[in-house]
Amino acid sequence: MSATPPEASSTARRLPLPNPFALTTGGQLWGAEVAVETYGTLAPSRDNAILVFTGLSASAHAAAHAGDPSPGWWDAMVGPGLALDTDRYYVIVVNSLGSCFGSTGPKSVNPLTGQVYGGDFPELRVEDIARASQAAVDALGIDTLHATVGCSLGGMTVLAHAALFPGRARGMVSISGAMAANAAAIATRSLQREMVGSLLKAGADTALVEQAMRWARKIGILSYVGSDLLEQRFGRDQTEPYSGRGSGTDFEVESWLEHLAHKFVRQFDPWSYWTISRAMDLFDFGAFGVAAGADGLQHRGATDTAAAARRLILERALVIGVREDLLFPVEQQREMGQVLGESGVDCEYVELSSAYGHDAFLTETTLFTPVLSEFLECIGANTAQRSRILHPLGTNING
Amino acid sequence: MSATPPEASSTARRLPLPNPFALTTGGQLWGAEVAVETYGTLAPSRDNAILVFTGLSASAHAAAHAGDPSPGWWDAMVGPGLALDTDRYYVIVVNSLGSCFGSTGPKSVNPLTGQVYGGDFPELRVEDIARASQAAVDALGIDTLHATVGCSLGGMTVLAHAALFPGRARGMVSISGAMAANAAAIATRSLQREMVGSLLKAGADTALVEQAMRWARKIGILSYVGSDLLEQRFGRDQTEPYSGRGSGTDFEVESWLEHLAHKFVRQFDPWSYWTISRAMDLFDFGAFGVAAGADGLQHRGATDTAAAARRLILERALVIGVREDLLFPVEQQREMGQVLGESGVDCEYVELSSAYGHDAFLTETTLFTPVLSEFLECIGANTAQRSRILHPLGTNING
Repeated sequence: MSATPPEASSTARRLPLPNPFALTTGGQLWGAEVAVETYGTLAPSRDNAILVFTGLSASAHAAAHAGDPSPGWWDAMVGPGLALDTDRYYVIVVNSLGSCFGSTGPKSVNPLTGQVYGGDFPELRVEDIARASQAAVDALGIDTLHATVGCSLGGMTVLAHAALFPGRARGMVSISGAMAANAAAIATRSLQREMVGSLLKAGADTALVEQAMRWARKIGILSYVGSDLLEQRFGRDQTEPYSGRGSGTDFEVESWLEHLAHKFVRQFDPWSYWTISRAMDLFDFGAFGVAAGADGLQHRGATDTAAAARRLILERALVIGVREDLLFPVEQQREMGQVLGESGVDCEYVELSSAYGHDAFLTETTLFTPVLSEFLECIGANTAQRSRILHPLGTNING
Repeated sequence: MSATPPEASSTARRLPLPNPFALTTGGQLWGAEVAVETYGTLAPSRDNAILVFTGLSASAHAAAHAGDPSPGWWDAMVGPGLALDTDRYYVIVVNSLGSCFGSTGPKSVNPLTGQVYGGDFPELRVEDIARASQAAVDALGIDTLHATVGCSLGGMTVLAHAALFPGRARGMVSISGAMAANAAAIATRSLQREMVGSLLKAGADTALVEQAMRWARKIGILSYVGSDLLEQRFGRDQTEPYSGRGSGTDFEVESWLEHLAHKFVRQFDPWSYWTISRAMDLFDFGAFGVAAGADGLQHRGATDTAAAARRLILERALVIGVREDLLFPVEQQREMGQVLGESGVDCEYVELSSAYGHDAFLTETTLFTPVLSEFLECIGANTAQRSRILHPLGTNING
């Protein structure tokens, strides 16, 4: 573990991964690296680091800072006095392996061939994202994390990290995540991958692939936000002037979707999208609880989440779910809280309500802030008994 | 009104529409016709006819009969002793104007040009579907219908029919319909139309259009069935043999979706799909309650469903909603029942529960049968008071 000195200010850098970097299902990456941004100061005791795992399409740029004043995706949560308080914690955000914002992914050049990976990027699993981020933590000379925090895909990755690296984090926060995607989420993401992947594999031109990415993004948005939100914001408001022949903008809600989808397309690499989306569907925390099956297939009931949870070494865990989440239904998050709680982890489960559904952690940060800061503060506090924090919309699994 | 003699057996035929047939927003169809199937016998008193309005993609072939023994889409509901009891009622099912199963639609040849309409088919509204079907009723020499019954789009069309032809039906049944689509349903269908329409308009080859139709259908299926159903049926079951490189069949739920979508594509005309889908989004029952706005636009709150309902002349109405319906949320159907009930219509509202969600009327017919047959029986029965029928999962709006 080669330690780098603690930094006083927020910085962005790339950290090399062990070379070659071995992937879960047999692939290898040569000369791979991850893009990392850190916020705050690593304490001399090196015990105040929080590792953040992101959603599918986010970068390491969680918050604006002097080196990069552009808006971050979690500006309201990462900073002095905020939920991830940079006056106290050293916050590490890693761009997921397989993504396209500085970390090695399908858009990178494979040094063995001199060609961009594209569809030849080896199969990626959520476990690989967790391993690559932990390698960054190692490179920063941090032995034990104060906590891991993850949203959406990140809310799955914290579980993979906890299972792969028991004891390397004292606390774990899963926000709008799941132990495994359900059938509807798989079906939704599968359709998105089919749209983008079929055109990519056919070598379709950029315009067609971008069109498929726009459509996939629209499906995504409709699975993120609740229908109540759309109804409140747009209802049946029509666009002006009325287009008559159905150009796709009869209604305001159509224009809004188009605006968001258009923005996304040029930001995110299609093969990264395809690769990480599939990793999400293949992730199954319960697989850590069983030996691999003879036929290599997962069968219903064959994985064991309780056994997987018993292997964890965590002081505390916090699971936050949002009732209106269509993609990661709150039942899945309640179940995660229960499984962790019953395994002996001191686990708090908090259920929030927001019309933003799966996107709530990005927009309704005031709901998440008190829950998160209180939890992070309790880690390591020498409390005589298990956490009993109660929140307006929360329930304590062990309470 | 030219009367044809009542028929003793189920038959399929095409009935000509008034020529030209004027559409709501100014278009005209020359030589238009609708495909009609009738089941049962028209009584000498001509008062036992039930007109069925279908969902977006259904034909007039609701049930198998001697002339066409292929399965109908509502075989379990239309026949002797069934909910639409052909021993008692003369059931008329019309293929919607704009569809592609015998009625004039985008796939038809425009007699003025000798060309297939395709994208030149004039703008269609739900009101036009109601008018064309009523023209068929006129052609059959029926003055007053015992009832209209409609599911999904049909559950909107019954409202259009009731508003356009007050007193021409004694009863009305809306199943999984709405007074107007909500923002999420508009957004979903808009995306489906964009996929199919953009390729059609670009003159893309059949294979690409079929691919878009497959994708649009998958979005549709995911909006019809509840996620609980997918979870119960498929969970995370993987396909065998494991495809490894993500051909789109990692999971059973993906294969199932592909199977259904593939089946649909060759059955339904893409321009019909586009045209009727848009009609669904533009329908607004409340527009019958207000004069047209000065700017021709609908503004939030500008339509008046209560005023529209007060213009209806109906003996009884039945509104059936399904709690798990994602596309036509049960709140919308409860609201329909309330608006009708408050307008003075003797309206019963029944809420059912089925994991099949929006598709329940096609699959869970045993839930619908008692509700529907009891209601149809009460129409015209000289009850001294308003209907008080109660069902396990039902509430009486006037009760």
